[in-house]
Amino acid sequence: MQNPWRTLSSRTIYRNGWLSLREDRVIRPDGAEGIYGVVELRPSCGVVAINEDDQIALVGQWRYVHDKYSLEIPTGGSEQGETPLDAAKRELLEETGLSARDWTALGTIDNSNGVTTDVAHIFLAGNLTAGAPVPQGDEQVEPRWMPFAEVVHSVMEGEITESVSVAAILKVELLRRGHASP
Amino acid sequence: MQNPWRTLSSRTIYRNGWLSLREDRVIRPDGAEGIYGVVELRPSCGVVAINEDDQIALVGQWRYVHDKYSLEIPTGGSEQGETPLDAAKRELLEETGLSARDWTALGTIDNSNGVTTDVAHIFLAGNLTAGAPVPQGDEQVEPRWMPFAEVVHSVMEGEITESVSVAAILKVELLRRGHASP
Repeated sequence: MQNPWRTLSSRTIYRNGWLSLREDRVIRPDGAEGIYGVVELRPSCGVVAINEDDQIALVGQWRYVHDKYSLEIPTGGSEQGETPLDAAKRELLEETGLSARDWTALGTIDNSNGVTTDVAHIFLAGNLTAGAPVPQGDEQVEPRWMPFAEVVHSVMEGEITESVSVAAILKVELLRRGHASP
Repeated sequence: MQNPWRTLSSRTIYRNGWLSLREDRVIRPDGAEGIYGVVELRPSCGVVAINEDDQIALVGQWRYVHDKYSLEIPTGGSEQGETPLDAAKRELLEETGLSARDWTALGTIDNSNGVTTDVAHIFLAGNLTAGAPVPQGDEQVEPRWMPFAEVVHSVMEGEITESVSVAAILKVELLRRGHASP
């Protein structure tokens, strides 16, 4: 398929430190003129960090937009000019105090891809060293260890719902089981 | 954990038919005053529809925000006042022409939950009846059937990256295998 959209013009509506919103005037796939609002976010990351006892490092935090507590893997947006892997190392350290010697990329997922540019890069981190978390002013996270099997169960039961956590934990579980080949 | 955020005021910056953006003045968890930009989206849905030959209904479409072709399960936003299940039935019909007699809710995932309110409701649909798709002006989708095992492989290989599709397909695969209990 070729790109069936045409962009006529583009204007920035809003910008803060984390996101910008632009509105494009477009020709839609059916030939009609319309608008398209795009929320621009820098690439983000999520880290599945597992220790020698097969426990995974999770962080609980209050999610402002949903006004609820959410248990997740360490996740976060990258900073300007930062690679996804560097962002993953920084987020893991900030939120849990952990450093990892082994890093494996497990692919990307596209969040709300009708609206946002958020691409989350997933990593598996092993060979961990504990240190002190580096709390950031705009977040207050509670790190904790949970048995990996229990966390897979929590995802399946709908107790963990953050998209990057769900995708990353289930990918790791299927990799361990030997995923289906076509 | 109690809500560590306080909202001082809120103003709407932008609104179109699909999203609205508001900026809140807040007291952050560390006590400092700041802003929080929230992208408000209505609940969305994603459907894993599987036929008698164990093939899953996928749709390929050009994703404007990423300027790339993306292979996904049928997904979409709900309309005002529509339940997630009704949205799922409508999106499946519009994008593939399929109706289903069996519907199973497989939970929700939160997309970009630092920024957007997008909660995607995932459904498994079975006992399918074919009909004609109902194309919408703002999308141009290519429906196709693929063997379920092959699609799990595509997710694990990073060829399918849309977050709702990844979560839904891997959840169904683990349900079939009997997911781990704690």
